[in-house]
Amino acid sequence: MAAPGAGASGEDALIARYFRPLATDPGAFNLLDDAAILKATGEDLVVTTDAVVEGVHFLSDDPPETIGRKALRVNLSDLASKGAIPAGFALTLALRSAEEAWLAPFACGLGEDAERFGCPLLGGDTVSTPGPLMISITAFGRVAAGRMVHRSGAKPGDRVVVTGTIGDAMLGLDILKGGAAAAAIADDPSAREMLIERYRLPQPRNVLAQAVRDHASAAMDVSDGLAGDLGKLCAASGVSAVVDMPSIPFSTPAASLLARAVVRLEALVSGGDDYELLCAIPENQFAAFASEAGSAGVTVASIGTIIAGTQAPKFLDAKGREISLSRRSYSHF
Amino acid sequence: MAAPGAGASGEDALIARYFRPLATDPGAFNLLDDAAILKATGEDLVVTTDAVVEGVHFLSDDPPETIGRKALRVNLSDLASKGAIPAGFALTLALRSAEEAWLAPFACGLGEDAERFGCPLLGGDTVSTPGPLMISITAFGRVAAGRMVHRSGAKPGDRVVVTGTIGDAMLGLDILKGGAAAAAIADDPSAREMLIERYRLPQPRNVLAQAVRDHASAAMDVSDGLAGDLGKLCAASGVSAVVDMPSIPFSTPAASLLARAVVRLEALVSGGDDYELLCAIPENQFAAFASEAGSAGVTVASIGTIIAGTQAPKFLDAKGREISLSRRSYSHF
Repeated sequence: MAAPGAGASGEDALIARYFRPLATDPGAFNLLDDAAILKATGEDLVVTTDAVVEGVHFLSDDPPETIGRKALRVNLSDLASKGAIPAGFALTLALRSAEEAWLAPFACGLGEDAERFGCPLLGGDTVSTPGPLMISITAFGRVAAGRMVHRSGAKPGDRVVVTGTIGDAMLGLDILKGGAAAAAIADDPSAREMLIERYRLPQPRNVLAQAVRDHASAAMDVSDGLAGDLGKLCAASGVSAVVDMPSIPFSTPAASLLARAVVRLEALVSGGDDYELLCAIPENQFAAFASEAGSAGVTVASIGTIIAGTQAPKFLDAKGREISLSRRSYSHF
Repeated sequence: MAAPGAGASGEDALIARYFRPLATDPGAFNLLDDAAILKATGEDLVVTTDAVVEGVHFLSDDPPETIGRKALRVNLSDLASKGAIPAGFALTLALRSAEEAWLAPFACGLGEDAERFGCPLLGGDTVSTPGPLMISITAFGRVAAGRMVHRSGAKPGDRVVVTGTIGDAMLGLDILKGGAAAAAIADDPSAREMLIERYRLPQPRNVLAQAVRDHASAAMDVSDGLAGDLGKLCAASGVSAVVDMPSIPFSTPAASLLARAVVRLEALVSGGDDYELLCAIPENQFAAFASEAGSAGVTVASIGTIIAGTQAPKFLDAKGREISLSRRSYSHF
């Protein structure tokens, strides 16, 4: 990403106008060079990449301002789960055309979040495409050398802990698509808005990065469905888990739709886009983790226990009976 | 990018099969975590991003093996121009479907280049799209702290130097699209193949990274056309330049097409996809730079001089007359 000089092209002008204001890090060189610099600080650099595609991860008529925020936040969520502090991001933006009415609010939302989360734009590429809009972000975080939190450290006896609530985003998407939840919640506009907002605007838990680093034995973010993501964490750690379904935290609207059988439990725990943290936390660390989360204004719930074994995690109902899940996560292919 | 455990999805299986073999760096954690680590080494990290889109940067019927290579090489070229040594890359791959016949050679070509250039896969994201294929790569390089070569260091009196030959790739694309060059070169299959190869498979000059760092006052790679890119380098440096057109290095086929008026000089110096290095080199450093390039098997040509001023670089013909360029570079918008 580089901007105009003599003979500035449309692409360069676009970058200068919309994206240079986001490149507040000195290592971005005002987007006037071929590359950016992340200065050596003695810390390890955590690198994560997530892309969002129109019609797949966001809807064509989602507000551009939330699309920009979501593209960054899904990456910030990964950094949070690794215990890393955001350092910046590279942006690839594939556009059909350079329309101010879309680009201005997109860049505005992205820029506000870049500032809010301390994650400035470092560089990137803007390309034309005849296809759907696509935004790919590679985000960088810093963590003390050797201290990144992995998926692979969970130990039998650790608590399985999630932040926030699960399943709201899949309900928000269902509402936007006119699914069963849309009709069921039509008489409650504030609940409707809340669920839609949870889909469009994830709340990455970066405020908990330090607590994750200090207390979690393993962590990841919940992006493709709680059940499947817990399976991945367990597989990476060579363990299994037992989850107490009634302990899974649902928002009031989600719990209501569940009670009314508008949505199935299975759908809530296998839907995507939660962007909450999923951690394995040793018993003797849980109180401290919960306390630090509480101080940061983030609710946490202990939903189960890591156990020895290699089978997929078990989900038990209130009577301790295993619930069979035919679907555990979202997959692109 | 993360791969299978319990309940492996299609996406995870795809990643494990095709991309885990490319993730040879320990910091990639076999693509089994949410993020990768670039270890602290005391060096600065150079970050660059370039995306390629089907129908824009490559053609639908280009061999998948060259598409993967090109996607990486356009980024490697940026690292070379900054004097950085490749350290790894993050990959975003947007696919319509997961077809082995395309993915296997794509990953194979990409993997061979990752090994050849010492730039392993660190992570990424694989998403589905209803639109054109798109590959976005963010590549990382290391450079001694504070030693990245910028666009902005050129000084009056420096030589303007390019590696290799200019304009071959735009001719290769013209041939593939059935343009004027296609008919003109139909009787010379080896020249035809050479030009097509130059479009499909750039030759990034990473072997010269050290020479660039040691001798260039400013550098960038030529990706959007020599004339426009030189304008950008000059603008970033607050200088201008005079280029002696007859000194611009052309391959034998390009020179022949130029002599036969199949292609205009202006098209060759404003076409994209050269991926050669463009450097400003102080007079007293030129001999050493040329010698090191020669030892590395890369031809270099001194094509002009940096001068004071802020106007766009001037291009002079053999008689010293200025050639007016109506177009200087490729732009997406």
